[in-house]
Amino acid sequence: MTAIATIPQTASSQPIDWQAIANAFIEIVGDRYVVRTREELLAYECDGLTSYKQQPAIAVLPNTTEEVAAVVKICDRYKLPFVARGSGTGLSGGALPLPESVLIITSRMRKILEVDLENQRVVVQPGVINNWVTQAVSGAGFYYAPDPSSQIICSIGGNVAENSGGVHCLKYGVTTNHVLGAKIVLPDGSIKDIGSKIPESPGYDLTGLFVGSEGTLGITTEVTLKILKSAESIQVLLADFTTVEAAGSTVSDVISAGIIPGGMEIMDNMSINAVEDTVATNCYPRDAASILLIEIDGLESEVAENAKRVEAICYQNGARNVTTASDPEQRLRLWKGRKAAFAAMGRLSPDYYVQDGVIPRTKLTYVLQEIARLSEEYGYYVANVFHAGDGNLHPLILYNNAEAGALETVEKLGGEILKLCVRVGGSISGEHGIGADKKCYMPEMFSESDLETMQWVREAFDPQGIANPTKILPTPRTCGEGANPNHDAKYKLVDRF
Amino acid sequence: MTAIATIPQTASSQPIDWQAIANAFIEIVGDRYVVRTREELLAYECDGLTSYKQQPAIAVLPNTTEEVAAVVKICDRYKLPFVARGSGTGLSGGALPLPESVLIITSRMRKILEVDLENQRVVVQPGVINNWVTQAVSGAGFYYAPDPSSQIICSIGGNVAENSGGVHCLKYGVTTNHVLGAKIVLPDGSIKDIGSKIPESPGYDLTGLFVGSEGTLGITTEVTLKILKSAESIQVLLADFTTVEAAGSTVSDVISAGIIPGGMEIMDNMSINAVEDTVATNCYPRDAASILLIEIDGLESEVAENAKRVEAICYQNGARNVTTASDPEQRLRLWKGRKAAFAAMGRLSPDYYVQDGVIPRTKLTYVLQEIARLSEEYGYYVANVFHAGDGNLHPLILYNNAEAGALETVEKLGGEILKLCVRVGGSISGEHGIGADKKCYMPEMFSESDLETMQWVREAFDPQGIANPTKILPTPRTCGEGANPNHDAKYKLVDRF
Repeated sequence: MTAIATIPQTASSQPIDWQAIANAFIEIVGDRYVVRTREELLAYECDGLTSYKQQPAIAVLPNTTEEVAAVVKICDRYKLPFVARGSGTGLSGGALPLPESVLIITSRMRKILEVDLENQRVVVQPGVINNWVTQAVSGAGFYYAPDPSSQIICSIGGNVAENSGGVHCLKYGVTTNHVLGAKIVLPDGSIKDIGSKIPESPGYDLTGLFVGSEGTLGITTEVTLKILKSAESIQVLLADFTTVEAAGSTVSDVISAGIIPGGMEIMDNMSINAVEDTVATNCYPRDAASILLIEIDGLESEVAENAKRVEAICYQNGARNVTTASDPEQRLRLWKGRKAAFAAMGRLSPDYYVQDGVIPRTKLTYVLQEIARLSEEYGYYVANVFHAGDGNLHPLILYNNAEAGALETVEKLGGEILKLCVRVGGSISGEHGIGADKKCYMPEMFSESDLETMQWVREAFDPQGIANPTKILPTPRTCGEGANPNHDAKYKLVDRF
Repeated sequence: MTAIATIPQTASSQPIDWQAIANAFIEIVGDRYVVRTREELLAYECDGLTSYKQQPAIAVLPNTTEEVAAVVKICDRYKLPFVARGSGTGLSGGALPLPESVLIITSRMRKILEVDLENQRVVVQPGVINNWVTQAVSGAGFYYAPDPSSQIICSIGGNVAENSGGVHCLKYGVTTNHVLGAKIVLPDGSIKDIGSKIPESPGYDLTGLFVGSEGTLGITTEVTLKILKSAESIQVLLADFTTVEAAGSTVSDVISAGIIPGGMEIMDNMSINAVEDTVATNCYPRDAASILLIEIDGLESEVAENAKRVEAICYQNGARNVTTASDPEQRLRLWKGRKAAFAAMGRLSPDYYVQDGVIPRTKLTYVLQEIARLSEEYGYYVANVFHAGDGNLHPLILYNNAEAGALETVEKLGGEILKLCVRVGGSISGEHGIGADKKCYMPEMFSESDLETMQWVREAFDPQGIANPTKILPTPRTCGEGANPNHDAKYKLVDRF
């Protein structure tokens, strides 16, 4: 398929001729990969933030960098907003389509282009699934560190856009720490290479800027990732406590002892029971106020010593019991419930809304008490599952979307939790991005003048404002008090074709 | 001293009224801190890259963020180029003044503003010396990781500008991995906050963009740094080899074994003898082709085990002898020669020119052979000292500046070495920045189109082009074949006052 499209004549201020646009896209990617009927577009009307829905005008599935560039060139020429989408598992609406927009889906771009074990790097296309990277190198004793809960389905392109994290990011950092460079298509359709294949790249750190920019600066079409040596030894500890605070102070004490576990996760009583109801791990005690999962990796002797020290710290903080697992099967069993936690909420309640705030570790007790108070005040259950080591909370608010006004109230409650995070010196996002969902809270963290600086950068890359517009940065139009406009806009379904 | 200056009327295209500018600066910072005589300006006419010299028109030493902002506002109003300077120890000419420019020196801004041990962060002014940060927190068992050789004199502001590294950056990363956020003054004189006090900050990673931007996007006036827990145990190993290649393959084997030492440094025979002549460590064997210094840190048992494994790997690679030091005094003795290596070259030769290239570890043997060949071809000795773990070479070219044309030839040789680094998949800078010295080699690493993207970002922050112009990015004006215009320009000393 040729990547050079016949571009229809510029239409100035006339209504968009979607048929002509579709024809141009068909010339680039072929008829099969230009999705334009209302029925087919249903599959793409939301991402993992399912309470927001919007159909794009058209969706295109390019297969190469050149095809992406050609598609974007048409968007540039017609000033058509475009939104990039990987697997669509994001939780902040970063890949939520916009009305009258072009959705550019990278899911056909699934090649692992290069595996360079000697230099510990892998080059992949954006549609490659997160855990395929580890699968491609695990035989040789390597792995790719960032591991979102959705790792068996989420794509590397989406991970780059949202700067995704995971349970092992306490020790190894989020996506931005593992991307060395990328090939990107800018909003004018030009192709650029940023970063390099080694960590040290001179000039401005455009790779760092691009990771986490949620499709507002362009689209990645190739990504060079760092891979790490697999640890010689791994142990997982499961401790259970009679208060959540005790688990929290254990986490602080472990870090203070100079031990950096691979991951430290807390689940509260509601989450424990939800997962036991669902996946029956039979190792999370249902009467515990909280459990703490700690994974320690490294050399055999180091892991053995650290595990002993961590166990002692757990008991010092009042743990009732500490279980240790070192063989892969046992470890998997201990992790099983945590991995299934979000899904389990779907059993407990018709709907749930997950937030992603960050707090300094030292404020954990206070913040949990406040969340409990807010939960009571608003009358909605809030289950807490979190990356405790880095203070990244995931409060899960349970509700029923069929109840009129429930979602609005729940979003307000979520907003209160985010404001609370900022008040104690934290952040409104740890790893899910801002997307459409949280841009209204950006002014809680940044002054207008600081946000303006981000806008300058955005305009430098995208002077026409067509790359995922209205995402990340708040605009007066979309940020009225409590206004999250997309989720119940009952958007008009237009028959264009 | 008031920070609100009486700004003289805009002078359009008339010659700059430096007396009026000086008066405006005096109103902001006081007469004592506006340096304007030729004699006094001598102190500031170069940074650590002493082969380049240029006096600014005027130098200003502000004491607060507001004073920096007021000074920059005047530069903005009169379109005066300004260059920020910390301690002036940079090695790429990043703080080299420009003709008719204002030099803004942050060395009075030396307060440690906040020490927050609980959250492992410190807020400092830019003039704070690198190792003061560690001194401020070491009593409580913490340290600041990036440790340039100049750490007892270089400033944090300069470290941020150049994204400085050090011997311990193999394991812990360069400056950008340790900066959480900053207060900055943009080229229009506005004050912005970027990043935050916790690692997770949503929106564009402006902190990552700013670190390493060498004063071209603005000036930092406050920096929030991460501090780390001091290791429980540290051991330093010194191995000596009969070839440099054997040291290089030892480095690769250590990393392949899954061990990440704090630092791994190689010195070649010429460097060994230079430091023994100078500081007489009496532990570097003068007949060794190379020595390898390896620092291992962590828990007691982990360090003991790793040290044993590393020792075995050294012997497997043909080490003649391996010495291990664990008490602080012995460790210091082993490191002493490495720390003094650059200075020692001053004894061996009237002048030396240090380069800062990066190569994939696996290309070490080939690159060292090529450097030896180039050294012979050009007729200049090249001593090699390098951060071997991350492939960051520091070839030191020995020459005599009194010899006509020597510097030009040496710079050409340095350029050949950088091109060689790029050819094998490396980079033209590991930790010294691009500055004035290496911008001509940027096109070796980046296409014109990729450099253009960096220029967009620059213009977004600095539309007038007054923040350290002509640095980092090549311009046709300054990048003629072999043209490094500043070093022998014999610039005119103008009596303005």
